[in-house]
Amino acid sequence: MRRVLLAIDVGGSTSRAHLVDPAGRCLGQGRNRGGNPASNTPEEAAAAIISAAEAAVADAGGGPFHIAVALIALAGPQAHVALRQLEVAFGRMGLRGPIVFSGDLLAMFASVTAASAGYCVVAGTGAGVVRIRDGEIERVVDAAGWLLGDFGSGYWLGHEAARAVAAELDGRGEATALTPALLAALGIDAADTRQLLGRPAPLRHLIDAIYALRPIELARFAPLVVARPKDPVARRLVAAAERHLADSFALAFEPVVPGPIALGGGVISHLSGLPAALADVVRSAGALPDIRPVADGSVGAIVLALRALDIAVDEARLAAIAASVVARREEVAGRVP
Amino acid sequence: MRRVLLAIDVGGSTSRAHLVDPAGRCLGQGRNRGGNPASNTPEEAAAAIISAAEAAVADAGGGPFHIAVALIALAGPQAHVALRQLEVAFGRMGLRGPIVFSGDLLAMFASVTAASAGYCVVAGTGAGVVRIRDGEIERVVDAAGWLLGDFGSGYWLGHEAARAVAAELDGRGEATALTPALLAALGIDAADTRQLLGRPAPLRHLIDAIYALRPIELARFAPLVVARPKDPVARRLVAAAERHLADSFALAFEPVVPGPIALGGGVISHLSGLPAALADVVRSAGALPDIRPVADGSVGAIVLALRALDIAVDEARLAAIAASVVARREEVAGRVP
Repeated sequence: MRRVLLAIDVGGSTSRAHLVDPAGRCLGQGRNRGGNPASNTPEEAAAAIISAAEAAVADAGGGPFHIAVALIALAGPQAHVALRQLEVAFGRMGLRGPIVFSGDLLAMFASVTAASAGYCVVAGTGAGVVRIRDGEIERVVDAAGWLLGDFGSGYWLGHEAARAVAAELDGRGEATALTPALLAALGIDAADTRQLLGRPAPLRHLIDAIYALRPIELARFAPLVVARPKDPVARRLVAAAERHLADSFALAFEPVVPGPIALGGGVISHLSGLPAALADVVRSAGALPDIRPVADGSVGAIVLALRALDIAVDEARLAAIAASVVARREEVAGRVP
Repeated sequence: MRRVLLAIDVGGSTSRAHLVDPAGRCLGQGRNRGGNPASNTPEEAAAAIISAAEAAVADAGGGPFHIAVALIALAGPQAHVALRQLEVAFGRMGLRGPIVFSGDLLAMFASVTAASAGYCVVAGTGAGVVRIRDGEIERVVDAAGWLLGDFGSGYWLGHEAARAVAAELDGRGEATALTPALLAALGIDAADTRQLLGRPAPLRHLIDAIYALRPIELARFAPLVVARPKDPVARRLVAAAERHLADSFALAFEPVVPGPIALGGGVISHLSGLPAALADVVRSAGALPDIRPVADGSVGAIVLALRALDIAVDEARLAAIAASVVARREEVAGRVP
């Protein structure tokens, strides 16, 4: 029976599982919806993780496998995941070792560097900055979830966009190109001039449509904001997001840890002013900025799984792991025969 | 069998039902939790309404009754309540007439005036302003629910307070007396100096405690804000709440409808600067301000139920209805033998 490791990166919108051999080579991968603890019950989070893991095991041929460790990288404490549910399901898949929890931001960081100290700046569904030292998170700034923070995140941008649209339709706010865009995204007729219960019909329908969503789903409107740099409202929101993240980074920054800085999350590549703002903070401490974009925490979750078994990962092995994950992804996508 | 009417005022935190005779005299009252459509499923809203109605019927001696109409005053469209569930339960209680829906703000307005035109300014769990003409809502400003608006509401104050506390504990925000108050309210030890996963322990526990609540429950922190006028953060929040509501009123105001203005909701009496701000708007149009506080929409729901049966309600009958509701409340409370 092949000895393998299971690594699962649990993001806000997607959970990605990889089954790898002890060298970190990818044998199978699977994905499912996100399992963010701020917007899922422990059972929902566990179900998303299990489905992604089952897909990875199936993609690797179905086994039987001896899974030496299952590493789960996620936002928030492990108490937010129904552990017993995971134990039963993973046991059925062949888990013989421990279930180890780690942070989603640690996994992002480990995806782009073998260093044990630096920063991860994230703007995906959520947002925040962590300072990492000795492979552990030493300081978190923000990343407090959609109700308490996550300033500059996809949720934040989407929520602010929805509020700006409601304000315009209500006569409280200025006109914005976000209004036709967001109404169209929700299938609402912007040209409906009726009044419904004292409100313009599009506003009444907007209210109904927004409350039919789970709050975290407001993040889906973030792309509408970043795609409209000529709209003053959208431009101000993007600038505010950049400022929030740069401020969080400045709070987390310590000159003794100049970098590297991993930049992750689905929104961050659209915050075009952010890298320069981060670089300014690093340079003001007399250090050289080392900023590295990261797509997701998949590779880092594999690295953390290997390290959980005391298997060292240097830059060369990290590159090999990343290459094998990409190769498998392309195989699955059918681009390589 | 006695011919009666059933009137239910569905608020954000409490639903209040009254069974009255055709003169509007209160025969029984009952209450249950709120059924706010923005934070309840249609089934949950219906269940809260039914429980309050059943309690009112029981309080009136249990019947049998011929209920000529059931009027439900609530925020948002009736589609947010499971109608079939209501029909079955009300039928069992003796409903022989229609179920009529109306607005919670119309009910508040009708609680303090027999006029058919004026305003209702509300800051309870939610917040907003309506202009009423011919007994119908002609214009709503805000009252868009906790995700899209409700600026100045109990939810808004509580949410902003929680964010201010998280910001202070995170090193992002200024010190505020809200921090010890809110941590104490959640049973979190503010003196715990440990770091947990890169955060101060009280912040880690705050995050866990906040996400264990339904978002709308953040309104419970509003009293902590209004009780701290000496704290700069709390004072700014209260001033901002007053400004939001005064701005909404100014948008809703039309000189041809100078008033009366009903002021409702659990928070509004704590916004001590608001009446003067509203009065300024009215006076600037050359009219005399007529501002009337209202505890809840119970009396108005009864008025609307009577009007649904084409029974006229003038100021004298309104006063009689209000007196009988208070008398019954005191009887139930055991203060009158």
